[in-house]
Order: sequence, then structure tokens, then C-alpha cells
Amino acid sequence: MKAIGVTRDGDEPELLEIERPEPADGEALVRTLRVGVDGTDHEVIAGAHGGYPEGEDYMILGHEAVGVVADPNGTGLEEGQVVVPTVRRKPDGETNEYFRRGEPDMAPDGEYFERGIVGAHGYMAEYFTSPADYLVPISEDLAEYGLFVEPISITEKANEHAFATREPFEWRPETACVLGNGSLGLLTLWMLGQQFDRTYCVGRRDRPDPTIDVIEELGATYVDSRQTSVDEIPEAHEAIDYMYEATGFAPHAIETVHALAPNGVGALLGIPEPWDFEVDGGSLHNELVLHNKCLVGTVNSHVKHFEYAIDTLEDMPEWLLDGLITTVAEPENVTPAFVDDDDQIKAVVEFDTL
Amino acid sequence: MKAIGVTRDGDEPELLEIERPEPADGEALVRTLRVGVDGTDHEVIAGAHGGYPEGEDYMILGHEAVGVVADPNGTGLEEGQVVVPTVRRKPDGETNEYFRRGEPDMAPDGEYFERGIVGAHGYMAEYFTSPADYLVPISEDLAEYGLFVEPISITEKANEHAFATREPFEWRPETACVLGNGSLGLLTLWMLGQQFDRTYCVGRRDRPDPTIDVIEELGATYVDSRQTSVDEIPEAHEAIDYMYEATGFAPHAIETVHALAPNGVGALLGIPEPWDFEVDGGSLHNELVLHNKCLVGTVNSHVKHFEYAIDTLEDMPEWLLDGLITTVAEPENVTPAFVDDDDQIKAVVEFDTL
Repeated sequence: MKAIGVTRDGDEPELLEIERPEPADGEALVRTLRVGVDGTDHEVIAGAHGGYPEGEDYMILGHEAVGVVADPNGTGLEEGQVVVPTVRRKPDGETNEYFRRGEPDMAPDGEYFERGIVGAHGYMAEYFTSPADYLVPISEDLAEYGLFVEPISITEKANEHAFATREPFEWRPETACVLGNGSLGLLTLWMLGQQFDRTYCVGRRDRPDPTIDVIEELGATYVDSRQTSVDEIPEAHEAIDYMYEATGFAPHAIETVHALAPNGVGALLGIPEPWDFEVDGGSLHNELVLHNKCLVGTVNSHVKHFEYAIDTLEDMPEWLLDGLITTVAEPENVTPAFVDDDDQIKAVVEFDTL
Repeated sequence: MKAIGVTRDGDEPELLEIERPEPADGEALVRTLRVGVDGTDHEVIAGAHGGYPEGEDYMILGHEAVGVVADPNGTGLEEGQVVVPTVRRKPDGETNEYFRRGEPDMAPDGEYFERGIVGAHGYMAEYFTSPADYLVPISEDLAEYGLFVEPISITEKANEHAFATREPFEWRPETACVLGNGSLGLLTLWMLGQQFDRTYCVGRRDRPDPTIDVIEELGATYVDSRQTSVDEIPEAHEAIDYMYEATGFAPHAIETVHALAPNGVGALLGIPEPWDFEVDGGSLHNELVLHNKCLVGTVNSHVKHFEYAIDTLEDMPEWLLDGLITTVAEPENVTPAFVDDDDQIKAVVEFDTL
């Protein structure tokens, strides 16, 4: 079968011809429909994550997938059922308390594989196998957009963790701000628009720009961080009750605290490299305490968040989902899907349709 | 009546002779038993908080108090009832949503007075008045230790806010660490000892030292931060599930994140001044995200936390409470109560006994 992967010697995605996988006990075989490309894939290609599957000279890419059950293999799934796979898997031959509890997203470094990212093949192939417990059913009508379930699930988890921090008191938030105008940022901006009175999205682009168009179509305010730094948002616009960071730009973690309104919370999702810089650590600390602020880091998601994400996806307008998909590539020519310029929002590799 | 206060021209606590206050509608008159001294009082004396009561040339000190209702004034309290006052009050002639909801601890800067700290007289006087809603009844048996209710309430709130952040998943913490070996730190160390398997307390003192004696009597491990910095605790001892910071030393806010175990939470309570220093902001951000960590700032407390604190105080051993009180001063000679050296843990000014 055809698969898109990276090899130890290569530095870009390649079309591989490999054997179709056989489902093991408890696994189903899935025929792939579509797989999304995101920033993590570009990092994998650049070699930032490493960790090829044991004994392999290549790793299949892709972790945002939707497919159709081809062989239920006695798992209780039905042939033809549309499913979305989760990402984290037990390391080979091991399990641990996080997987046993159904919360692999809470497993620490080294206690998980991530399909298409570290230690396990991804989904960018004509077929893939997965334990049935990690295949989340989705309606046929959403098959085309099912690749958005994984990124939306990341925000479902982030929101759950962030809002839980404000449970002990009567929190009445009005404003939310998303740092980052990639596809995850724009999906999140729509989600926050359902809950918050006023939303903002921070990027560093000139008009005309397709992401700024989406931001404005969503009724949000675009903030150009080259003109207004994140900690200046309260002065330039208003203080923000919920900050959602999806840039991986380390100063944003600090600036987020200063952009928050009293009693606000910031969710951090980016994963920067080590980077020393000077901060006013006293004011950061002081501001967190005197205004009951909170910073919560969150990574990955689990089955429950995928289920929430499917409900969310159902409510999202088609114009938004269609507008986010800027490239649909064939496996035989994936180059356009890995172009990462300002015209690209979400690229998709399409293996098949329903 | 006698009162201990600071004056605009003075730089140390003075014995003042002032008029006994008259309770307004909804207020009771309380005869003061004991008032504790803490770090905030020293900051008030040094002029760090400012904000004298309007039109006054002095401010009565003290916010950790216990007293007896002298005149219920039709509020429903009973004469002779032992009560502990909360600290935050509505600014003169104003109210706001936070007070209306019973959550004045969530009011932002400028939307509250704090008795004995900013804008309103404290409790270090023979009598004080207070709205009855802010007088929390406590058993007579605890009258002697009632001054500990306010600091314990601060930790009740911090723990509530910190543990709420871990509610979305199955958190199974084992270890807790208190940064700071003052009386608040030691009270908290006992509290955390009831919930966690292993506890640590960080200070910077040589043995013999009365606080290290208390730490060890509590079965906790003393960590000298001059030898083991906070971010080295995981290597020197073990990673910590719950970090509680009560030092106001700004680098501790950053180091706390590195001392945490995966999925851990740090509560920040200290209030440092602005202070620029270099941090590895990339690793800080990365560590928060990849290990689902959280930092939550918390200040003050409200009536519910005072009620929790009274339950907690009831369970605390007398040896601990007696051991923490290192000075009991008379209003006529308060100098020993404001000595702030390594032999002092909690100083008390005693106006009367039951």
C-alpha cells in the first residue's frame, strides 16, 4: 500500500510502498480517508521529535486522521463505520496507570508513544490498524471534516483544564484571546466565540491574509503582535479573562499573565525549546498572586475529549471548515500539502472518499 | 481605649489612646482577646502598603484576631460569643459584585479595604467593630488559638484553588513541599501532612532553630535552600506533586515549576516587588505544557475558608500551636511582639482573656 513517511536518511516526506498492516487481537483495520498536516508534522520531518518505531528505518507521518473500518476483526466495531483515531499509545509491551485509567494524555514523557510523532507509525497511509478502544466513531456526514477532531480535542482538553481552575469561585468571564492564527488557533477562536462575549486573535501578518479574513468573519478582533505586544492588550483593547496560547513562543507564557484580567486563566499549549531571557519575575509572581491568576499547561487529549470534539465539530459552520482546508493533496503528490507559507491554513492528504 | 498603631510620622508601632468605636447598623462591638503579628504587619509598619483610613493620621495594626462579642447591637450574634473577624471590607460607601457574592478575596486591587493593611483600621485595640457577617463564630475552647484562623484560612483557600486545578483527571499526589518556614508555612506543613504521604519544608536557617525543630517534629524533611535550590529538589529528594510558596522570593515562582512532578500544581502566595532577572523561559513554558503542570496565584480568603480553618484548627495538636507562639506581649509593651528574628515564630498581643 501507499504511505507517506520520513526515512532516517531523508529530510522530506516520501511516498513509500509498504505492506498493509494486519490488525492484532483487539485491533481493527481502518481504510484511511483523510489525514491533516500540522506544525508537529513539520517538526517531525525536521527531526525534532525522533523516536522511529523500533527496528524501522522509516516512520509513517500523520496524527490527524479519519477513516472507515475495513476489518472490525471481532472488536465490536462495524465494517464501514467512520472513525477517528486518538494519538497516544502504550509503549511496546508495556502499560502504565495513565493508560489503565483512560488518561494517556496525562502520562509523563517516556511513558507513551505518539502515532506519527514518536515511537509509532502515523496514519498517512492507505490503511492503518489501531486498538478499537482508540477509534472514536463519528457520523458519516462529518467524514470529510473528521481530520479536525484531533486538533479540536486538544482545545477541549485545554478548556476543561483551564475552566476547572476557576471553579472554586463565581467566574464571569467575558473576553478570550487566542495567541496564534494557525488552524488550531482559528478552530479555537470559533469555539471560544460560542462562550465569550468578545474574542481576540493574535498573529503577526499583514493584510490581505486568509487567516485575518477568518478572524474577522468570526467577529473577533485581530491583534498584530508586531504593533501591540501581548502584555499591551489590556491597554490597547481590554484585559482578557481567558488567554489561550498556541504559538510556542516562550515570552508569550510570561506576557499572558499580564494580559489577563483579575481572576483570569491562561492555557499554555506551545512547546518551545530552552531559551534564556530576562523577565520581571517579581511582577509576574506578584500579579499571579494579587489577582488570583492561573497558568495551566496542557498537552494531548483522550477519548472523552475526542467525543466532545465531535459534538463541537457538528456545530461548526461549513464555511469555516471549508475555508480552513487550503490544500487537498493526493498521496502520489504530497508536496503541496507540506508547503508551509502564509496561504496555507490546513493541508490534507486524501487517500479515499466515502 | 488602648490601641497599637502606626502614625504618618512614625516608623514603629505606638501605643495610642483613642475612643472606643461605636457599632453602626449591622455591626457588632467586639472585645479583643488576642491579635497575631505577621510579615504583612511588618510591611505595613515599613510603609509598603500605605492607604491610611480616610481622614486619619494613624492606622490601627493587626488582622489576625480573636475576640468576644461585647455588644451584638441587634445583629443576631450573642453577647459573650467568641468570634474571628475576616479581613477584607467594602471601600467606604461602595460595594461591588465580589462583596455581594461573598467572595471579597476575588476583588481586584482598589475594590477593597483590608483591615489593618490598607484603608481601614485593624484589630489591635481593646475593642473593634465589624459587620456581623464578617465575624465567624468559634468555640470558646479555641479562643486562645483563634488568631491562627486567619492564616489557616489563607491556606484553605490556596489548597481549594490548587486542588481544583487537578479535578479534571485522576490525580494521585503523594508529596507536598512548603516554601517558607514562618508560622504560615508551619501551619500549612501540618495541614499538608494530613493529606500527603511525604512532606518537605524549605528554609534557609542553620540548626539549632525552632522552626526546623517543628518541621522535624511534624515528620517532614527540612530542605536548606542554601544547599539545595528549589529546582534541585527532584534530584536531591523527589519530584513534588504540590508546591506551596509562601516566601515572596520571586525566583521561587519559576523554580516551583521545575520542582513539580508531572501533573503537579504550585500555589503561589508571596508578594514580591518588581525584580528583573534571567530565566530559561523556553524550558519553563515547555515544562508546564509537556507535563500538564499548573501555577495558581491566590490571595486572601473569605468566610467559607474561615469556617474550614476553624475545623482544621480543632484538629491541630496543642504542642504545635503552643510551640508556634513564641511571644505573648501586653499592649503596654508590644516591643517584643515586633521583634522579627530567628527565635520568633508567632508573636501575639494579648488584650484580654476569656
